[in-house]
Amino acid sequence: MTNKQSLSSSPAGLAGVVAGSSAICTVGVDGCDLMIRGYNISDLAKYASFEEVAYLLIYNKLPTQLELSSFQRKLISRRELPKQLCQMLEMLPKDSEPMDVMRTAISWLGHIFPESCKQDLEQTQELACRTLASLPGVMAYWYQYNYGCGVIQTATDAPSTAEHLLALLKLKADDPLHIKTLDVSLILYSEHEFNASTFAARVCTSTLSDYYSAITAAVGTLRGPLHGGANEQAMALLRELRQADNPVRALKDKLINKEKIMGFGHRVYKVSDPRSDVIKEYSKKLSEQSNDGHWYSLSAQIEQTMWDEKKLFPNLDFYSASAYNYLGFVTSLFTPLFVISRLTGWSAHIIEQRANNRLIRPQSEYIGPGPKVYIPLEQR
Amino acid sequence: MTNKQSLSSSPAGLAGVVAGSSAICTVGVDGCDLMIRGYNISDLAKYASFEEVAYLLIYNKLPTQLELSSFQRKLISRRELPKQLCQMLEMLPKDSEPMDVMRTAISWLGHIFPESCKQDLEQTQELACRTLASLPGVMAYWYQYNYGCGVIQTATDAPSTAEHLLALLKLKADDPLHIKTLDVSLILYSEHEFNASTFAARVCTSTLSDYYSAITAAVGTLRGPLHGGANEQAMALLRELRQADNPVRALKDKLINKEKIMGFGHRVYKVSDPRSDVIKEYSKKLSEQSNDGHWYSLSAQIEQTMWDEKKLFPNLDFYSASAYNYLGFVTSLFTPLFVISRLTGWSAHIIEQRANNRLIRPQSEYIGPGPKVYIPLEQR
Repeated sequence: MTNKQSLSSSPAGLAGVVAGSSAICTVGVDGCDLMIRGYNISDLAKYASFEEVAYLLIYNKLPTQLELSSFQRKLISRRELPKQLCQMLEMLPKDSEPMDVMRTAISWLGHIFPESCKQDLEQTQELACRTLASLPGVMAYWYQYNYGCGVIQTATDAPSTAEHLLALLKLKADDPLHIKTLDVSLILYSEHEFNASTFAARVCTSTLSDYYSAITAAVGTLRGPLHGGANEQAMALLRELRQADNPVRALKDKLINKEKIMGFGHRVYKVSDPRSDVIKEYSKKLSEQSNDGHWYSLSAQIEQTMWDEKKLFPNLDFYSASAYNYLGFVTSLFTPLFVISRLTGWSAHIIEQRANNRLIRPQSEYIGPGPKVYIPLEQR
Repeated sequence: MTNKQSLSSSPAGLAGVVAGSSAICTVGVDGCDLMIRGYNISDLAKYASFEEVAYLLIYNKLPTQLELSSFQRKLISRRELPKQLCQMLEMLPKDSEPMDVMRTAISWLGHIFPESCKQDLEQTQELACRTLASLPGVMAYWYQYNYGCGVIQTATDAPSTAEHLLALLKLKADDPLHIKTLDVSLILYSEHEFNASTFAARVCTSTLSDYYSAITAAVGTLRGPLHGGANEQAMALLRELRQADNPVRALKDKLINKEKIMGFGHRVYKVSDPRSDVIKEYSKKLSEQSNDGHWYSLSAQIEQTMWDEKKLFPNLDFYSASAYNYLGFVTSLFTPLFVISRLTGWSAHIIEQRANNRLIRPQSEYIGPGPKVYIPLEQR
């Protein structure tokens, strides 16, 4: 029940405030035991493929072998981009932020494959599949058109999104460690309960707006450096510290200057981020395979220093930076990769919000001026 | 302070929950005394112009005459749409939802006039002015290109946004009552504290994402029929009931069938919506000037019936529908008009959120399955 008493202010940024219920994901009682629909994230990262997790999120169960192949065929068949979408992507400025490209392209998809007002479950699932299938092509088409060479591909027959992405961007699509790393990363990034972008998608959905509006809102929200943009910021930090004569001292100087170090700490996790150890291991393996192990060793140095100085632990974004860098992705595509993965979680939340909808419309505590007399323009 | 105890669930949809503080607007202690930066909405609607209110929201004070003319000149000078934007608008399907056109166009503006990372106040104010100046042209260009005849204009020298809009859409831009009605409507729609679209914009802004991402999120959220889309739904109801032999009985049948009647009641207002009486008066005046008074008298009948049957009062959207219809706007442009007005409130909230930012990231109460053992694909 709501009454006058309940109109007391919540903690800033709704920190620790339960804004609703969800059956999709829990970070665990201690905030260090992430489960997606009951499955531990470590098990999913170790044993499942990203497509299995995408299916789990969109269809609310792990697929059988038959269901999985059918799902994979569906994704493969929807990879080709509509011609108008390619034309639109060609019109975007070369110096666009790739996250803006993702935002505009998803909004654009809403014109080409609009959602009907019914908003039934099957349609939402279909839109989620189509969008998931399209986004690697969107990212690759715009990027290759502006910065690539040779033929631009948007569709491949690669069975997994990870191989498809590596192939479109002309990276090592036949290297098992590269494929597995990207696949695991897509799993780790797929879902994380009421994070800011997911919450924005749910606020949007709660007005009974359409799927694309909710996803567009989520992409714009993920773009911020305090959210998805953090993996790009972490890479920028690595680059900067690699130039320093003494990286540890340079980092300590930053801490003394109270600079915000992205990729450390977490609103929900207080002890550690269970996803970090997983991606760290892959970053390490890639560094051993690479002839430049320094991105990983520098990352480990930074992790140690952040712990010694601030008792802050790395979150998923920190070691994702060096891992993506080893895979050969340019830094500005790190957050768009996050979009492709998290689209599955956002879609699950849109479906869940619709199934038991109530408009999300809080109130604000007024701290402005008291009543003022309006003075006519000519007397001001 | 946040602790385990505070992790109890909030009312559904955050109803009555204070999600933050704001000095921009209050709906008053009883939720029936709307003030924008201390000025009563009735005074603003009666004495001010929309441009004065836009200035009040973006620059946090009522302008002097000099400041107002400078602001108006600034808007006039930024009305012309960039050529690429027009080309993009031409590529959008003719059967697009106009709200999708607004969403895509704003996302697109973010490529052409990107926001720098500094995100300082002056830049945000400039982006707000540019976007406010561009949106009437966006709406008119796409609409006239697909449904109009003759030359498509996007820029005029009209001093007010209301006259500019009427001129672009070839409506009665020289009729004082028409101009005043649209101007008043833009004032009434301009700002309303933590409504869903504004809250979405603040969630997005809180990740330190850019201005366009926040506005795009807000537009997508406003699109929903439980929010901005309600004025179009109200018009659809009027059209439907006008066809009925007995409109009151037809409405009562809808109530018996538990159909949701848009344009009535409000999450925050419990007694009445102070904006409704204002726009109702203009709808009445327009009906008297028109040779078809029926839209107004039908609206009044519906209002009476909703009160008699359900004790529900009309909100701003209800009489806005008949008023906009008298002005000659096609129904699908009603919510885009709301966008143009509310852009000013959204901009004020983006500025306010940035000035004292904390990531908006609530938590969810987990109601899903307990831990499950991962069964390998081949054993499912």
